Amino acid sequence: MEKPWQDKLRQIDPYVPGEQSKDPDLIKLNANENPYPPSPAVAEVFRTFPTAQLRYYPDANSGNLRAALARHFGVGENQIFMGNGSDDVLALCFQAFFCSDKPILFPDVTYSFYPVWCSLFRVPYETVPLDADYRIRPADYARPNGGVVLPNPNAPTGIGEGLDFVEALLRCNPDSIVIIDEAYIDFGGQSCLPLLEKYENLVVVQTMSKSRSLAGLRVGYAIASPELIATLEAVKNSYNSYTMDMLTLAAATASVEDDAYFRATCAKVAATRERSQERLRALGFTVIPSLTNFILATHPRVPAQEIFTQLKARKIFVRYFHLPRVDNHLRITVGTDAEMDKLFEALTEILA
Amino acid sequence: MEKPWQDKLRQIDPYVPGEQSKDPDLIKLNANENPYPPSPAVAEVFRTFPTAQLRYYPDANSGNLRAALARHFGVGENQIFMGNGSDDVLALCFQAFFCSDKPILFPDVTYSFYPVWCSLFRVPYETVPLDADYRIRPADYARPNGGVVLPNPNAPTGIGEGLDFVEALLRCNPDSIVIIDEAYIDFGGQSCLPLLEKYENLVVVQTMSKSRSLAGLRVGYAIASPELIATLEAVKNSYNSYTMDMLTLAAATASVEDDAYFRATCAKVAATRERSQERLRALGFTVIPSLTNFILATHPRVPAQEIFTQLKARKIFVRYFHLPRVDNHLRITVGTDAEMDKLFEALTEILA
Repeated sequence: MEKPWQDKLRQIDPYVPGEQSKDPDLIKLNANENPYPPSPAVAEVFRTFPTAQLRYYPDANSGNLRAALARHFGVGENQIFMGNGSDDVLALCFQAFFCSDKPILFPDVTYSFYPVWCSLFRVPYETVPLDADYRIRPADYARPNGGVVLPNPNAPTGIGEGLDFVEALLRCNPDSIVIIDEAYIDFGGQSCLPLLEKYENLVVVQTMSKSRSLAGLRVGYAIASPELIATLEAVKNSYNSYTMDMLTLAAATASVEDDAYFRATCAKVAATRERSQERLRALGFTVIPSLTNFILATHPRVPAQEIFTQLKARKIFVRYFHLPRVDNHLRITVGTDAEMDKLFEALTEILA
Repeated sequence: MEKPWQDKLRQIDPYVPGEQSKDPDLIKLNANENPYPPSPAVAEVFRTFPTAQLRYYPDANSGNLRAALARHFGVGENQIFMGNGSDDVLALCFQAFFCSDKPILFPDVTYSFYPVWCSLFRVPYETVPLDADYRIRPADYARPNGGVVLPNPNAPTGIGEGLDFVEALLRCNPDSIVIIDEAYIDFGGQSCLPLLEKYENLVVVQTMSKSRSLAGLRVGYAIASPELIATLEAVKNSYNSYTMDMLTLAAATASVEDDAYFRATCAKVAATRERSQERLRALGFTVIPSLTNFILATHPRVPAQEIFTQLKARKIFVRYFHLPRVDNHLRITVGTDAEMDKLFEALTEILA
């Protein structure tokens, strides 16, 4: 039944986020979450937080956290923008930097939110196919565009490229903003942050959800030239000045300041990933070499959907993609060594 | 110097949020913050939160919190939408509900973010003057429009209107979405939530920043018909599925479940407001009767700017508006009785 006010509503396909299972016996390798808890310094912040302060508005400028990140990365505080998860940061980047009539470019196989933001903010876009080895070729981005965004390492392939790759992309895009989404960089990839000194049109986006085990708190950030950060701040402050709550600011700061724990956790995940890739290959899987905390794999004999279903019956959740190009692939988040051992046990049974 | 990528940037006036002072001796009556801490149940959530869980993504559907609010208000869970402060909720409402070529309508003296969101989302608007007594007249909104948004009680006037007022507004706007921003409702206003049963085009927005002393955590919500809530969810999930972090969800739920504390705190603020209005009148101020946690007042003899400056020198911060219509007014947030006594002492000196 048509109602008189319905023509004023935004027409949009409802996206339904995946439900989080509450079963404690579950081995959850489906959301690229970190298998280790956050730094003990974060727990300490929770225990000692002066909750009476919550009656005040938080620091809209995220001062302490930005200062900690500036020290950590050796950049200026005016080069850092904080957001409510890297999705918030990327969505604001789309609004701030992709204001052209020309289409923006991103890979055909990549983070699924890019086309969603284009639709929401009415940004025209074209996708650029990965090559036969699932790699991104910078030369394919050497054409007129309204901007470029891509993850490095890419998701869900897991392939990470080096500094030369990003510089090649920047060299053929002097007229556009180039956003490199480094959500998975800390597990062995090479960050392009050193290129910021040379390229004022580069924006690097990172998140604390994966490598810092803080998905539950929602922290992401962009690092770029002061001019681009000022534009992001202006857009954000026209939307909601207070996106970062007090506890999140304090906990994220504590995480950044505990560098030893951060490095140790990332190294453990990377070691388990390397070992897991070998085990998967030994089981007959074709594995795309990953520099992230997940592995994209396919089995030549048993369909991915069947493996997915049988793992689920054994309370092991992985991700199965119906997407073109990576159809018949499983995306397996790297868990603890014990979790991965249970996975390999189950896979051995399923493939027998 | 023009750079080749600058034409792709969003052109927007930078809005600079007010800085929060860290001086503990300050009497802070300038941001409409609650003088009392949040419920002790919130502190307990902080102390006992299982921080290891932070490695997981939070519940994108805010299930427990929505259930608690649904019980509290006697509405369906599918009638509640959660956001990162009511600014986030309102900004999403502007994107979801104001998709018409006709201008939306709001008062000329009202919440300063409305025109900012119109500019950000390119929503045409017209402002409707308050009457000579600073009141909103529903009849002035009986003309073709793309939507209506207004706070009740209004800010910064503090004037609250009854159910008849909102129903009159709805009766002359059957073709539009009508958003009633009830940020200050809990301090003595009459909520229009009962009208939801009759009007599917009504959206009620509230916040936990003021009456629940949770400004530091960022929690707001909209209550409306299931159809409007589904549209809001679709827009939000196209932007950022995980806006509400785990700790905020748990702490806000604890606050809602401690109704006795909430009622007692609101009643204390309302009692101090009534007493403060009398004291201000006794000092010669003209006071607009307020149903909020702030008071808008002007002195016939001493300019507001001078009082503002002299209070600041005494470490008492209030808000002074340069705006047309309410120029020469001070907006004074209601503090504790002890804080207000210090204010009146200072005012007595300044006016002497």
